[in-house]
Amino acid sequence: MSKSISRRTFLQTSGVTLGASALHSAAAIENTLNPSLVLNDVTGVTQQLAHYLVKSRWENVPKDARKEAVRSVFNWVGCSLGGAHHVTTDRAMSALAEFTGKPEATVLGRVERLDIQHAALMNGITSHVLDYDDTHLETIIHPAGPVASAILSLGERNKISGKDFMHAFILGVEAECRIGKAVYPSHYERGYHITGTAGVFGAAAASGKLLGLSEQQMVWAIGIASTQSAGLKEMFGTMCKPFHPGRAAQNGLTSAFLASKNFTSTERGIEAPQGFAFTMSDEQDFSQITNDLGNSFEVTRNTYKPFACGIVTHPAIDGCIQLRNNNDLKSSDIASVTLRVNSLVLKLTGKTKPRTGLEAKFSIYHACSVAIIYGSAGPKEYTDKTANDLEVVSLRDRVTAKADESVSEEEAFVSITLRDGTVLKKHIEHAIGSLERPMTNEALEKKFRDQAENVLPPVLLNQVIEKCWDIETTNDINSITRVAVPR
Amino acid sequence: MSKSISRRTFLQTSGVTLGASALHSAAAIENTLNPSLVLNDVTGVTQQLAHYLVKSRWENVPKDARKEAVRSVFNWVGCSLGGAHHVTTDRAMSALAEFTGKPEATVLGRVERLDIQHAALMNGITSHVLDYDDTHLETIIHPAGPVASAILSLGERNKISGKDFMHAFILGVEAECRIGKAVYPSHYERGYHITGTAGVFGAAAASGKLLGLSEQQMVWAIGIASTQSAGLKEMFGTMCKPFHPGRAAQNGLTSAFLASKNFTSTERGIEAPQGFAFTMSDEQDFSQITNDLGNSFEVTRNTYKPFACGIVTHPAIDGCIQLRNNNDLKSSDIASVTLRVNSLVLKLTGKTKPRTGLEAKFSIYHACSVAIIYGSAGPKEYTDKTANDLEVVSLRDRVTAKADESVSEEEAFVSITLRDGTVLKKHIEHAIGSLERPMTNEALEKKFRDQAENVLPPVLLNQVIEKCWDIETTNDINSITRVAVPR
Repeated sequence: MSKSISRRTFLQTSGVTLGASALHSAAAIENTLNPSLVLNDVTGVTQQLAHYLVKSRWENVPKDARKEAVRSVFNWVGCSLGGAHHVTTDRAMSALAEFTGKPEATVLGRVERLDIQHAALMNGITSHVLDYDDTHLETIIHPAGPVASAILSLGERNKISGKDFMHAFILGVEAECRIGKAVYPSHYERGYHITGTAGVFGAAAASGKLLGLSEQQMVWAIGIASTQSAGLKEMFGTMCKPFHPGRAAQNGLTSAFLASKNFTSTERGIEAPQGFAFTMSDEQDFSQITNDLGNSFEVTRNTYKPFACGIVTHPAIDGCIQLRNNNDLKSSDIASVTLRVNSLVLKLTGKTKPRTGLEAKFSIYHACSVAIIYGSAGPKEYTDKTANDLEVVSLRDRVTAKADESVSEEEAFVSITLRDGTVLKKHIEHAIGSLERPMTNEALEKKFRDQAENVLPPVLLNQVIEKCWDIETTNDINSITRVAVPR
Repeated sequence: MSKSISRRTFLQTSGVTLGASALHSAAAIENTLNPSLVLNDVTGVTQQLAHYLVKSRWENVPKDARKEAVRSVFNWVGCSLGGAHHVTTDRAMSALAEFTGKPEATVLGRVERLDIQHAALMNGITSHVLDYDDTHLETIIHPAGPVASAILSLGERNKISGKDFMHAFILGVEAECRIGKAVYPSHYERGYHITGTAGVFGAAAASGKLLGLSEQQMVWAIGIASTQSAGLKEMFGTMCKPFHPGRAAQNGLTSAFLASKNFTSTERGIEAPQGFAFTMSDEQDFSQITNDLGNSFEVTRNTYKPFACGIVTHPAIDGCIQLRNNNDLKSSDIASVTLRVNSLVLKLTGKTKPRTGLEAKFSIYHACSVAIIYGSAGPKEYTDKTANDLEVVSLRDRVTAKADESVSEEEAFVSITLRDGTVLKKHIEHAIGSLERPMTNEALEKKFRDQAENVLPPVLLNQVIEKCWDIETTNDINSITRVAVPR
């Protein structure tokens, strides 16, 4: 990040005094950082982004971006269906459903219809609750949740076409990931859950595009989003983690509606001295927002989780599944499994005796055991029941792992010794699901079916899958949501 | 802040590594700051606060706190009525009213009824939009807005008594101001509008009290509030500034409802390594939250603005009004007005030729002119019309001000020379409205009437004033809201 500006350097060189002497007067503090400060190197970032968002035309979005965006939305719908009946979703629904207004929008996979604000919240929660969605690896943002959740609801209300939906989606992902890149990793390191804090910008941008905001209004929408940017990493492991993309979707939608009525904010929500980037991060690189805007698309760098657990375990899981499938392995054949992995794997997922599904997400031993027994590591392999299954536990206890600094985080060496003495070996350089080995459409479809098969009857399941792949061709996004609920 | 812990020191001594080397792996970052870290000196702050909030009984709240709380709520209702038809309020209403659910709650001074979430938002906006509300000087939090807005709506829905309302109000103010003190001034200096960021805790605490949350649920409510804490100082001068207390009220209310259905969050939303205080501030003093909790009440240190402008101008305005009233001055009598003030006054409010009401808020010359001509400096003295009134402009141009470092920020020396050569002098040591010279109940009532007289017919205005003073005696808070709307 050679171009990054540190917060301190910026504030000092801009003549802003932050010493304790200025802190004795309330009024002094309210005015020390004067919003009229103009700095050439950071001026106009919000304006430039707003200009692009408003002027962008579908015709100018390249094919590879459109194609990856469809895969992103496809994966997001599957994950939303998969989380539709999670206890987190049920509790949020029971707390908030009484406040819903006009039932104009769908919660994917559920019968309730909510106002579009609440539906955006709920779809954001469901899509992230299994930690199984998508990842923009450069920022660790899960990009689809905040953006798609906001505009699916808005799209239902406004009966928008699939093309308009996809165009807004691509722009929303562009805004959130570029703003994320401008503050990552410093912002994330401070403690912010970037999917929430950057996601609200994506939701605002995409919603604003669909509402046809003017450039001035889009500037305000970004500003209103900036002042709602929130979400703490401390929430990991609690119901608030999926709440973040949900609330980001809802708050972004609100931002766009307020801006559409000329509710004003600062014109420099991202880059101003007391705006998002300087307040909520210690380093900034605004060129990440403007460089090559309109030519390079962040959505093309989106990835999808093939396994419902931390990314460090994926190479080993991948290796185990390949050996299992290629050799038709059964757990009873196996004497031992030996792994050589990066030290991080043991540090983060070294739990040898996980007792719950959630604990199992932090056990490389459990991961390899289910990979060999079931050939997969989806949500079903991370239930409390599976964590305590006798066969799983027995094989788990035959897995050993050794940290080796010469093995990169992307790699894993798997060695399986059978009871007959045969040794099977597999070296994974990049796991399935990485940018180097992206999940195929077929694999995405299997992941979708696995998540949705208990939520939708087969006829609807097939229809929603077909319509999601063909989303660009629909005249009304309601054609998808109609078949994405149980009745 | 001798007890404060710097973010860096804390993280280093707690064995947490934040170096760049850990930043290469997504999973590494997600897990570097392990929530299970326990530090003796900061453990349990959230828990202790939740315990107090749940266990507190009305009988244990001392008289002086109750008395000041009534004045705080009284002032808040007046400000909400005063801002009820501001263009900011109208735009927010036109953007969001379509999403309202069950019309269970009042927007003070307006005919629309909204669901309690939206009503909380709107009352928070109206109460702050004129920058004329209350100030907890130690943190510059405007305490009533987030708290009262949340629980008035909830109180209407649940038909709660005035005592329960006041008890919840006092506890909410306690939570937000103590949490604010724990991070002030560092947090504010970073760029956060503390009325929004701390206000959400107050709203959650007060709403949680009214909902009868268990201790565990209150811990979660505080956590859910912490992960929604938001609001940037860059928004000052835009419609987003009053949006902050509104959204804080709404988000706090949501936090309490979610917690009431066992929606989980971290147990240490305030003090955890990646919780509110360490992520959103560079210094922390957690003793501010727990010291003397239940004995010393922050609401007793609330103050109310007698003038609708920055606090630095208040001593000079006060002096001008006193000289005017004691000598029956007319602007035509006056040859010149000379001020000796702290240098900050000229730095912050040195505008000599303000052209709009908003600009006039930053002009000590305008302030003294209207103070002498009208004997007040309320919202009516800060309209565009008044800023351009010929008499106001003429007297304004006869005002000169001199910075004098020997004059403190609380002081002003006013000298008025009449055309007949008489010189009138006044030294103000502490302006009216300060903690040393609090506004009387009569002055608060005049302020209330000035703001509300064009919003409510006289009969209702008298009723709402009476009922607000007697709020502790009402069996149902609806008895107040019923008479606080135009029809």
